[in-house]
Amino acid sequence: MATTTLNDRLKQSITPTALRSYLAEFISTFIFVFAVVGSTMSSQKMLPNAAMTDPACLVAVGIASALGLSAAVYVAANISGGHVNPAVTFGMTVGGHISILTAIFYWISQLFGSIMACLLLKASTAGNPVPTHAIAEEMTGFGASILEGVMTFTLVYTVYAAGDPRRGSFGVIGPLAVGFIVGANVIAAGPFTGGSMNPACSFGSAVISGNFKNQGVYWAGPLIGAAVAGLLYENVVFPPQSCDSSTEGAVV
Amino acid sequence: MATTTLNDRLKQSITPTALRSYLAEFISTFIFVFAVVGSTMSSQKMLPNAAMTDPACLVAVGIASALGLSAAVYVAANISGGHVNPAVTFGMTVGGHISILTAIFYWISQLFGSIMACLLLKASTAGNPVPTHAIAEEMTGFGASILEGVMTFTLVYTVYAAGDPRRGSFGVIGPLAVGFIVGANVIAAGPFTGGSMNPACSFGSAVISGNFKNQGVYWAGPLIGAAVAGLLYENVVFPPQSCDSSTEGAVV
Amino acid sequence: MATTTLNDRLKQSITPTALRSYLAEFISTFIFVFAVVGSTMSSQKMLPNAAMTDPACLVAVGIASALGLSAAVYVAANISGGHVNPAVTFGMTVGGHISILTAIFYWISQLFGSIMACLLLKASTAGNPVPTHAIAEEMTGFGASILEGVMTFTLVYTVYAAGDPRRGSFGVIGPLAVGFIVGANVIAAGPFTGGSMNPACSFGSAVISGNFKNQGVYWAGPLIGAAVAGLLYENVVFPPQSCDSSTEGAVV
Amino acid sequence: MATTTLNDRLKQSITPTALRSYLAEFISTFIFVFAVVGSTMSSQKMLPNAAMTDPACLVAVGIASALGLSAAVYVAANISGGHVNPAVTFGMTVGGHISILTAIFYWISQLFGSIMACLLLKASTAGNPVPTHAIAEEMTGFGASILEGVMTFTLVYTVYAAGDPRRGSFGVIGPLAVGFIVGANVIAAGPFTGGSMNPACSFGSAVISGNFKNQGVYWAGPLIGAAVAGLLYENVVFPPQSCDSSTEGAVV
Repeated sequence: MATTTLNDRLKQSITPTALRSYLAEFISTFIFVFAVVGSTMSSQKMLPNAAMTDPACLVAVGIASALGLSAAVYVAANISGGHVNPAVTFGMTVGGHISILTAIFYWISQLFGSIMACLLLKASTAGNPVPTHAIAEEMTGFGASILEGVMTFTLVYTVYAAGDPRRGSFGVIGPLAVGFIVGANVIAAGPFTGGSMNPACSFGSAVISGNFKNQGVYWAGPLIGAAVAGLLYENVVFPPQSCDSSTEGAVV
Repeated sequence: MATTTLNDRLKQSITPTALRSYLAEFISTFIFVFAVVGSTMSSQKMLPNAAMTDPACLVAVGIASALGLSAAVYVAANISGGHVNPAVTFGMTVGGHISILTAIFYWISQLFGSIMACLLLKASTAGNPVPTHAIAEEMTGFGASILEGVMTFTLVYTVYAAGDPRRGSFGVIGPLAVGFIVGANVIAAGPFTGGSMNPACSFGSAVISGNFKNQGVYWAGPLIGAAVAGLLYENVVFPPQSCDSSTEGAVV
Repeated sequence: MATTTLNDRLKQSITPTALRSYLAEFISTFIFVFAVVGSTMSSQKMLPNAAMTDPACLVAVGIASALGLSAAVYVAANISGGHVNPAVTFGMTVGGHISILTAIFYWISQLFGSIMACLLLKASTAGNPVPTHAIAEEMTGFGASILEGVMTFTLVYTVYAAGDPRRGSFGVIGPLAVGFIVGANVIAAGPFTGGSMNPACSFGSAVISGNFKNQGVYWAGPLIGAAVAGLLYENVVFPPQSCDSSTEGAVV
Repeated sequence: MATTTLNDRLKQSITPTALRSYLAEFISTFIFVFAVVGSTMSSQKMLPNAAMTDPACLVAVGIASALGLSAAVYVAANISGGHVNPAVTFGMTVGGHISILTAIFYWISQLFGSIMACLLLKASTAGNPVPTHAIAEEMTGFGASILEGVMTFTLVYTVYAAGDPRRGSFGVIGPLAVGFIVGANVIAAGPFTGGSMNPACSFGSAVISGNFKNQGVYWAGPLIGAAVAGLLYENVVFPPQSCDSSTEGAVV
């Protein structure tokens, strides 16, 4: 990968294969956002005044996120890499896995997929309101950004591990690990920040609902967390030069 | 697959191997419908007046759907392909993977499996009523069809990806991905359409309960969504001609 | 397997390898019963008067069953085959996979493991009552046996598929499929029969609580269902003679 | 492994590879504790007076534990072995898989990771209180230690099985099995002891909340249970000398 020149990457961004990647990102982001926003709308419909304070609703959203993302990453895994998230794409760009130009096309596909999912949910359910991510009253925007950033760090770190060919057959359950970490984080942070970790999801629901409050939180935190994860994994935890010693690396 | 003639396919429809496929579809559809309809009956028994507005009941049905379908697809995967759903069979027919005649036998097996599951649940539980899929008051039949169609699109798209031999060892967790996407969609759309995505499930419960209201929604939407998924996957996302470049296809 | 004589099997029942199998069954049954009975005790402690009518409690028991059985089958899978259930052992005996003598030792190990799990739970929680499986008021013992029998059929059918070496790499996720089918069935039938499918689990909790009401239901149904599954899988769905055509067998 | 001398092990404790292992344990323990403590904080925020008696909250914590630990073990699996738990490290030391010196560094990394996760949760959520593991009123410390010990036994037993190279391709889903057993146990024992099984998790939350009540329970039980699991697995269930007969070992 390190030997691919920028020129090759620019060319890659407009080939049929690349276009298929963008389509795969669009569809997978649609699948994930449909699960997250749809499960939140389900909760609001069942408990109009208490959805945000009911633990069963939190479980519903957490499980839908975990299952939906596992499937979304799975179907896109060997077409686009299964990012399904602008923060993941950013982390992959920082780590040198895709070019900036490709990353921009990925972002557009992801944002468009998210908007379409929210639009479909609103239109087909006769105008039920689309919810947006929100932070708890007592929290500051800075605290929420930190929380979202740390959670996105764990997500992108998992994506790196899942896509690492040096980990052998472990890659098979990678899409499950990626979905599971997000499900766990949603349940852990839901009542505090909503547990987004995904700027596309937060942006799409904001566009359709027209409520952009705290939107910055859901971009700043995740992008910074993703960048840190990419740099740490590539340079410290599992650097390319330790490639041939990957098995010895395990102390067990 | 493209080289199999129609004649071969007709012959395949009555061989012992084909008959085993029909039995596998019958059993797996039974397993799945038992989980979906059974978990809804459990909810109704626990909360007779509030099952449809209780988030924990939605979680129960969503989890039972995800776990039950994962297992149902798993056991049938290398016997019948693990369709467990007339819409999936339709999508596979549109994509040219099975013949129309075989598809008809699959449909009969699936519908019969669903009816038997509902009948058993009603008879063994001393006549507890069998629930049917229903759409929310504020929604139109058209909106519900769109929602069911889009969800079935994501399901059949996942089935295509799971069964694609070009994806290598990823196929191993395919049954989990198929079960998970359905679980996520059930939680996302449960209070709006029930989250069927499966005409056999909706039909079987309608037959046993005698309530065919909105039955058309649960056939039109899923069948159209499945056909679109089959055409898109086969012709655009991962066309057969890109077979030998499947690894290069990944931008990551 | 078909070539092993009865004599060989008798010898197998007392070798160190066989003794390890019994220990593995003891430990794995302990793990599973601990999860099922423990999660029911948790529910009772949280909602002393409503545990049996609360959907979140049903979800708790269903998830604990699915996760606990997946892990229990996993750890025993290549030591004892991971039966964890006298009905599964019976189904395997009917299908000719283990000798009757070995099956008896398996049963003793499983029943002992279950009793120990219930005893530990009662003793360590300062005498909180151990719950037993019970059938709904409106149901007959016959109906409950049918329901338990059908659910155990689906379980043993899944165990057969999971352990079938002809299914190739699919065996890897077999323990998950076995755990998942039980989780789905528990949620589907919990308020009707408790969703046991496991005579060891029902027997162990009955011994420690001293309540043997309806115990027959939890033996007759599962054993008959298991035998039918073994016979059907071995003779119809995937008979040994179709071994070399297993791949062609898939119509897809 | 048995041929590695103590000297080699001491050297291993300070190599770059070893340092990466400590970092991996730090990050993975952070991920797991964030999920467990975060989901408990979410529950407390939603139901300030009833979180400990609400079954949906128990389900939330159980699912977050299962999903979070699966992901945490997954990302660290082939770097540090994915212990994520001082009790697991102790069990591995007793079984002779890692040196005492390495174990001490693992412990420090795990405790530090746990403290950081709790500190981050408290700071970023504007001082919401960090919960600690607690035992039910009617229980004795001895009973709670027994319960925690037995649950940790099942966890470490599963970790041993998951990491055993003689089990072939089954290792692929090992991280899921480890996460699942913990999720099942949390739901089974949550209202009685909190279902910790992890001294690092109990210690970290105690440090940040300043409440060390019953801390001994969460160290004594897990460490003893882990040691027993290590000794039993290595010497009885699957001893090294039966290595070349591992396949024959299965009775099925």
